[in-house]
Amino acid sequence: MICNERMVIYRGAGQRVAALEDFCPHRGAPLSLGSIQDGKLVCGYHGLVMDCDGRTASMPAQRVQAFPCIRAFPAQERHGFIWVWPGDAALADPALIPHLEWAENPAWAYGGGLYHIACDYRLMIDNLMDLTHETYVHASSIGQKEIDEAPVSTRVEGDRLITGRFMEGILAPPFWRAALRGNGLADDVPVDRWQICRFTPPSHVLIEVGVAHAGRGGYDAPADCKASSIVVDFITPETDTSIWYFWGMARSFRPEDNELTARIREGQGTIFAEDLEMLEQQQRNLLAWPERPLLKLNIDAGGVQSRRIIERLVSAERAAEAQLIGRQA
Amino acid sequence: MICNERMVIYRGAGQRVAALEDFCPHRGAPLSLGSIQDGKLVCGYHGLVMDCDGRTASMPAQRVQAFPCIRAFPAQERHGFIWVWPGDAALADPALIPHLEWAENPAWAYGGGLYHIACDYRLMIDNLMDLTHETYVHASSIGQKEIDEAPVSTRVEGDRLITGRFMEGILAPPFWRAALRGNGLADDVPVDRWQICRFTPPSHVLIEVGVAHAGRGGYDAPADCKASSIVVDFITPETDTSIWYFWGMARSFRPEDNELTARIREGQGTIFAEDLEMLEQQQRNLLAWPERPLLKLNIDAGGVQSRRIIERLVSAERAAEAQLIGRQA
Amino acid sequence: MICNERMVIYRGAGQRVAALEDFCPHRGAPLSLGSIQDGKLVCGYHGLVMDCDGRTASMPAQRVQAFPCIRAFPAQERHGFIWVWPGDAALADPALIPHLEWAENPAWAYGGGLYHIACDYRLMIDNLMDLTHETYVHASSIGQKEIDEAPVSTRVEGDRLITGRFMEGILAPPFWRAALRGNGLADDVPVDRWQICRFTPPSHVLIEVGVAHAGRGGYDAPADCKASSIVVDFITPETDTSIWYFWGMARSFRPEDNELTARIREGQGTIFAEDLEMLEQQQRNLLAWPERPLLKLNIDAGGVQSRRIIERLVSAERAAEAQLIGRQA
Ligand code: FES
Ligand code: FES
Ligand code: FES
Repeated sequence: MICNERMVIYRGAGQRVAALEDFCPHRGAPLSLGSIQDGKLVCGYHGLVMDCDGRTASMPAQRVQAFPCIRAFPAQERHGFIWVWPGDAALADPALIPHLEWAENPAWAYGGGLYHIACDYRLMIDNLMDLTHETYVHASSIGQKEIDEAPVSTRVEGDRLITGRFMEGILAPPFWRAALRGNGLADDVPVDRWQICRFTPPSHVLIEVGVAHAGRGGYDAPADCKASSIVVDFITPETDTSIWYFWGMARSFRPEDNELTARIREGQGTIFAEDLEMLEQQQRNLLAWPERPLLKLNIDAGGVQSRRIIERLVSAERAAEAQLIGRQA
Repeated sequence: MICNERMVIYRGAGQRVAALEDFCPHRGAPLSLGSIQDGKLVCGYHGLVMDCDGRTASMPAQRVQAFPCIRAFPAQERHGFIWVWPGDAALADPALIPHLEWAENPAWAYGGGLYHIACDYRLMIDNLMDLTHETYVHASSIGQKEIDEAPVSTRVEGDRLITGRFMEGILAPPFWRAALRGNGLADDVPVDRWQICRFTPPSHVLIEVGVAHAGRGGYDAPADCKASSIVVDFITPETDTSIWYFWGMARSFRPEDNELTARIREGQGTIFAEDLEMLEQQQRNLLAWPERPLLKLNIDAGGVQSRRIIERLVSAERAAEAQLIGRQA
Repeated sequence: MICNERMVIYRGAGQRVAALEDFCPHRGAPLSLGSIQDGKLVCGYHGLVMDCDGRTASMPAQRVQAFPCIRAFPAQERHGFIWVWPGDAALADPALIPHLEWAENPAWAYGGGLYHIACDYRLMIDNLMDLTHETYVHASSIGQKEIDEAPVSTRVEGDRLITGRFMEGILAPPFWRAALRGNGLADDVPVDRWQICRFTPPSHVLIEVGVAHAGRGGYDAPADCKASSIVVDFITPETDTSIWYFWGMARSFRPEDNELTARIREGQGTIFAEDLEMLEQQQRNLLAWPERPLLKLNIDAGGVQSRRIIERLVSAERAAEAQLIGRQA
């Protein structure tokens, strides 16, 4: 299920990705229990053959021309992910899929995983756009007191939102000491640390994170005195209160070192799992106390402004849909 | 729970089967946690003794004459099954219980089992009255392409419905090859195959199935060149969206061979388990898309007409109940 | 959760017990995922520091004066238990906490445990105020036919209720035979047995139980010819249909014998677990048949009158709350 839509996602002819409603027009069986034959999806109940546009192609011993269609969702495979548009198909625009340099350039390595979390996707955006929680939730790995103390800056760039935090002359926390060592650098000297969170609607957050030996330029320091990477967070809403959370890390140093990729992936998986219970119980609390107002502090600016962008885009999409319907009528 | 009624079913005096509401008139404890003493059901909480007609017989140190009654459901044990009437007791007619020759005649053997499935009982009737699904759901055991291609005939006989399908000069699928061998017959020659599904309301389906060496008369071939049996399906609704599914197979060859009975039972259990997930997910889909129309193709005639019979009988029963109430008033 | 209130209970400054709403005023995270630092509760998400009165003490880099308060529940630790008042704080009166001699006096030993049971707390009070169920539910340990036959007396003392039952010249059931032996007494002679159940609102029941060699004075027999103890039942409602059930046994013989405490605790745990399924299924039945009246027999007097006391006190508390609100307005 994606955005409350039951979907079957599969590779059809020529391995092209297709996404359809998971409902066979014959008797309502889920097409996801079917199989692929000759690039077409075949219902596993009585063998109806479905085209990737939602039209029935054939069915044993039946005329199928009058069969009702099911909904096809525009879908694209790009950068190693599948991008589905659950809105009005006429408004789908593949050009909106962001370019992800780290996913295409062999100078980068990527490792990641998937968690299912029972929370509103916006709670996860809040989480990622305000990293002060690292001090408390991830105290033993990436958290440190200085995060709370460093001022956060927030900046809107069109539909994107950027929050940044810079710390100077601090000691690196365990995760980053290991990254410095992994990069062949001293881990016991003061460092400058940065966190630059970029929210791209509808729901992904890329975070540039890193440390450099202090005084060498910080974020702009030369590659031989820093360790840096991009934390990748694709948040796919499943329902109003659950998400598929694709997390990972992309790095541009030692990209060929698969053993390092695996080690980082394991460490990150452990750290990110620490957020799960907090998010799920926060969600339960918000459902139990629906009327209760939440605070909007300066540390919450990232989450609050992301929601504003989302709301603006949702309104715009609704208006465009209404116009489309008007034009058709 | 049967037909949304919480029941306790037990053997009372003389091992006679009784069915009562599972609610002790004292404090509402479930009588199903009780025990049988001297042919009477004793509540496991404070020892109220219940008669099989729903009247309290006694209770330690209490006068029980004024105790409210609980509902007793007409129940009969016959053919190795218990038949309960959850409707108005005055309309219960034991003569409606069908005669099952295979359950009584020692020339037959029977083996079967019970599955709990989260679907409307009518989805299971659809499943059994249209065996084209065998080609897809049971591809590796009893399914074969020829089922889809053979025309199906449907015939109403009073309240019963019969769908039949005959295939000639085909190769037997794995399950039937094993049955031919089990019957001492060659399994690598062309066969004629038949499936005759008989629906008896409210909700059971008996299916005569078999193969005979080709050209020997098919269904009517002499016993020494065919393997045949009756697939037994008793579908007991538990709630609106769940059933107790009693499945089994009755055969008239080598009835004394218990090892064969066990082997068939195991094979059938595996095959029938393949339907479970399909039915449960189909049910979930129908609940998620309640407004969506389903197709009624010729292969669906069995299911569609069974529902018509059920609806007619339900209406008739309601009218009879209304008349009873009118007469009492 | 206690009485439908989500609470976090912790030890603050000087180990004093505090109970707060489990909702961080910042973003609604559960405070129960936090930690204690310097006697204050620190939210595990972004480090808000909460005082035990529900006011925010501080938060990194924030002014907190205007933060909304959360509710603090009056809480006291006494007799080894924590007593929380989920009603209006102005009506909380620590003097209402009963004195429990056995919890304070070293001449007594106590052992017990906790069960979570999905039933209305009043069903558990019914259970404990009418021990005729022992004959049926606990037939193999403490139940015996004579309990049903002995008349029960019920007596109100202010807000408390006492039901008593005395049996003379009977044989002790297995649990009590073991207790006699444990106490160095003959276990194969007739005994007098008593059960005196004391209900104290809102929801605890203490039961004096014991046996004495017959004819030595029963309940008032000298210590060297009896075995007796107090069954302790604290019933804390979690929701309308679930409870935290703290059960235990206090005894004044061989209090220093920890091995005996453990053995009694294990036996009692087994016996009390026998009630769980009955209570949960009774609850399910009452929810399924909400309109159905229950009987109120003489054996139910304890439960029925306890409910009357509870209703009277609930009304009085509501009236007092209304008056408080009136005074404030
Ligand atoms: S439900 Fe898909 S073919 Fe019948
Ligand atoms: S509830 Fe059945 S005897 Fe009391
Ligand atoms: S939710 Fe508690 S500090 Fe943010």
